[in-house]
Amino acid sequence: MQNIGKISRVIKCKAAVAWEPKKPLVIEEIEVTPPQANEVRIKIVATSVCHTDLYHLLEDEAGFPTVLGHEGAGIVESVGPGVTEFQPGDKVIPLFISQCRECRFCKSPKTNQSGRDPQMMASADSRFTCKGKKVLQFVGTSTFSEYTVVNQIAVAKIDPTAPLDKVCLLGCGICTGYGAAVNTAKVEPGSTCAVFGLGAVGLAAVMGCKAAGAKRIFAVDINPDKFEKAKVFGATDFVNPKDHDKPISQVLAEMTNGGVDYSLECIGKVDIMRSALESCIPSWGVSVIVGWTDLEDFSARPVQLIAGRTWKGSLFGGFKSKDGVPQMVKDYLDKKVKVDEFITHNMTLDQVNDAIELMKQSKCIRTVLSVSPQ
Amino acid sequence: MQNIGKISRVIKCKAAVAWEPKKPLVIEEIEVTPPQANEVRIKIVATSVCHTDLYHLLEDEAGFPTVLGHEGAGIVESVGPGVTEFQPGDKVIPLFISQCRECRFCKSPKTNQSGRDPQMMASADSRFTCKGKKVLQFVGTSTFSEYTVVNQIAVAKIDPTAPLDKVCLLGCGICTGYGAAVNTAKVEPGSTCAVFGLGAVGLAAVMGCKAAGAKRIFAVDINPDKFEKAKVFGATDFVNPKDHDKPISQVLAEMTNGGVDYSLECIGKVDIMRSALESCIPSWGVSVIVGWTDLEDFSARPVQLIAGRTWKGSLFGGFKSKDGVPQMVKDYLDKKVKVDEFITHNMTLDQVNDAIELMKQSKCIRTVLSVSPQ
Ligand SMILES: NC(=O)c1ccc[n+]([C@@H]2O[C@H](COP(=O)([O-])OP(=O)(O)OC[C@H]3O[C@@H](n4cnc5c(N)ncnc54)[C@H](O)[C@@H]3O)[C@@H](O)[C@H]2O)c1
Ligand SMILES: NC(=O)c1ccc[n+]([C@@H]2O[C@H](COP(=O)([O-])OP(=O)(O)OC[C@H]3O[C@@H](n4cnc5c(N)ncnc54)[C@H](O)[C@@H]3O)[C@@H](O)[C@H]2O)c1
Ligand SMILES: [Zn+2]
Ligand SMILES: [Zn+2]
Ligand SMILES: [Zn+2]
Ligand SMILES: [Zn+2]
Repeated sequence: MQNIGKISRVIKCKAAVAWEPKKPLVIEEIEVTPPQANEVRIKIVATSVCHTDLYHLLEDEAGFPTVLGHEGAGIVESVGPGVTEFQPGDKVIPLFISQCRECRFCKSPKTNQSGRDPQMMASADSRFTCKGKKVLQFVGTSTFSEYTVVNQIAVAKIDPTAPLDKVCLLGCGICTGYGAAVNTAKVEPGSTCAVFGLGAVGLAAVMGCKAAGAKRIFAVDINPDKFEKAKVFGATDFVNPKDHDKPISQVLAEMTNGGVDYSLECIGKVDIMRSALESCIPSWGVSVIVGWTDLEDFSARPVQLIAGRTWKGSLFGGFKSKDGVPQMVKDYLDKKVKVDEFITHNMTLDQVNDAIELMKQSKCIRTVLSVSPQ
Repeated sequence: MQNIGKISRVIKCKAAVAWEPKKPLVIEEIEVTPPQANEVRIKIVATSVCHTDLYHLLEDEAGFPTVLGHEGAGIVESVGPGVTEFQPGDKVIPLFISQCRECRFCKSPKTNQSGRDPQMMASADSRFTCKGKKVLQFVGTSTFSEYTVVNQIAVAKIDPTAPLDKVCLLGCGICTGYGAAVNTAKVEPGSTCAVFGLGAVGLAAVMGCKAAGAKRIFAVDINPDKFEKAKVFGATDFVNPKDHDKPISQVLAEMTNGGVDYSLECIGKVDIMRSALESCIPSWGVSVIVGWTDLEDFSARPVQLIAGRTWKGSLFGGFKSKDGVPQMVKDYLDKKVKVDEFITHNMTLDQVNDAIELMKQSKCIRTVLSVSPQ
């Protein structure tokens, strides 16, 4: 095997370090130790910025200093003992949820979450230091770095022809939204859907609804600049809550004779989660929470579920990560799912704070940062 | 047809009238007008008391005066114009949810709630008066009366050999709990379940879990007197929250290696709804709200759904009422579902306040009141 006898050394490289909450990231030289047993060291070629990175930076208090980033793609640089599935040179996508294939969760078709969580390992015991300080791994991936170390149960090997500066988006947002419609909501042909929030996650949800055969897809956002893109992915109707005095659930009920069949919240606000639930038809509506917040509870009246609605949540679109991501890469190469259309900006890792600012202001869909030369 | 030419007159009969909220019912002589188009006048032979009757009496402010009762069985006395499905003498169960068989809801397998709601008709325009005052119909049924008038889309014709003083229980509680497990949660063979609240609804849910092949059924109640009955219906483990300092979700997680597969709330308290959700395993747990309250919102953290749980509600156990009730009567006659075991007390309509008191104090499962002689 290629890696036998190879001595892996500490790598010094560039990374964007989040030293404290709510402060700009700082480009630093960090040290990345060699991969340990079952670990893979990856040269990150490209990464994009997802709202969950912003959430951690702006809303969380613990978990600093850290290297953010979880939508990346790269090339295996070296592997630790016990790794047989990967070799240096493999094109890979690091995964923020793992798939060990051995635990009762991985063996069940009902969940995409492994009982073995490499994030625990990573945050408690990261492979990064900077200026003599331990720097934490973010959700097991930390792709805002030229190199990162990830447990092999959280790495997907992808088609060697895949363009890394595009498929990095399949590391989170696109799979999340697409799968939430297709795998979690299980949208049916001919149905009516509403997607709340038209970032990459919401647009991918629109694409998923369309792929599943929905006949009418309502795209809801307070930023009307997003509607044009939503049309590209298959949305048929566009609703800006700011244009209405009535609750949006009422607006949608009137437009659909009682409510949509499926609604997906892709924003991360508890009042919109409720509004999304209320927008789906009482008798059989299915509403899926995709947006992330851990600051508040969501709520509703019991009768709103007793009437027949179902409330679900979706993590990474319900995809088993190591199975799903290579398949989505393939579907992209086969032109069955769109990826390029999500990319509105291209920058370098040095410009990560500009990319964050664009997302804060809802002025981009996805910004791809080039990290290491390929 | 038997009813052609028959002149139906106003009936004077006995009923328990709820004149105002939170006051004992009063046995009064009331007038029941003849059935109008598509209506059926029913002589109620037996009725039982369900917690939803108590809820209206004790928690609602509007909807008085009324005749409570929605778990009854009786015999058709006369029918209005346009009724061809029923004849005087038919054994029937009045239904608090209708099935018109014609609307898009009745035609869909996804819901048991018709778009045509006879309750609206009934409460706005009931067939009862007492002492010159209009008395409202309760949920379209009002079975605490010797006679009641119900729209034909909310009446089920049942096997003529069925004992009415038993099968009256199939008008609500038993179908509700049993169906919540079988139809709404869709409990799978070999699974682990928890039922919160061991009234008739909860015990029927236990029976449903058992029928669906659950291998372990946790019965949860703060009244340990209920555990013996729960065993009769198939419960395998018994948990009294008062015996534990920890949240019950934690107790159940420890007893089940992470949480139950299915949980059913059969009490009607929003904090227990949350606890039931939290008691099911994050990756794939399904929690069903069966208990009724409209005073407060239920709530949880987004991550609790995003982790993989599903939250549903169930009305009348998801049974399409006119199809489901005759089938459940048949299943009872064929000894596939238990009914007699739910009956702990037998009284007459005159003793309705005693029956209500027993339920308030959680001292009965079901009390059957005999109403009219057969
Ligand atoms: N469940 C998961 O696995 C998972 C994975 C990735 C991201 N997420 C979450 O998904 C959400 C969306 O991520 P993104 O990267 O697409 O974010 P984004 O910031 O690019 O998009 C959010 C969109 O919501 C719109 N919006 C904001 N407030 C609104 C309101 N009140 N009404 C209507 N629209 C409103 C914004 O204009 C924007 O277009 C975030 O909460 C993120 O944390 C969840
Ligand atoms: N969804 C529907 O279609 C539907 C139909 C009928 C009844 N219901 C509702 O179902 C619920 C149960 O009805 P029932 O007739 O069986 O009621 P019940 O009063 O006979 O039983 C309730 C049980 O809950 C127990 N309980 C109360 N507080 C508890 C707590 N904090 N923890 C654990 N156990 C507790 C009581 O001891 C009792 O055994 C009610 O809310 C009723 O309104 C709903
Ligand atoms: Zn993300
Ligand atoms: Zn696993
Ligand atoms: Zn009831
Ligand atoms: Zn109908």
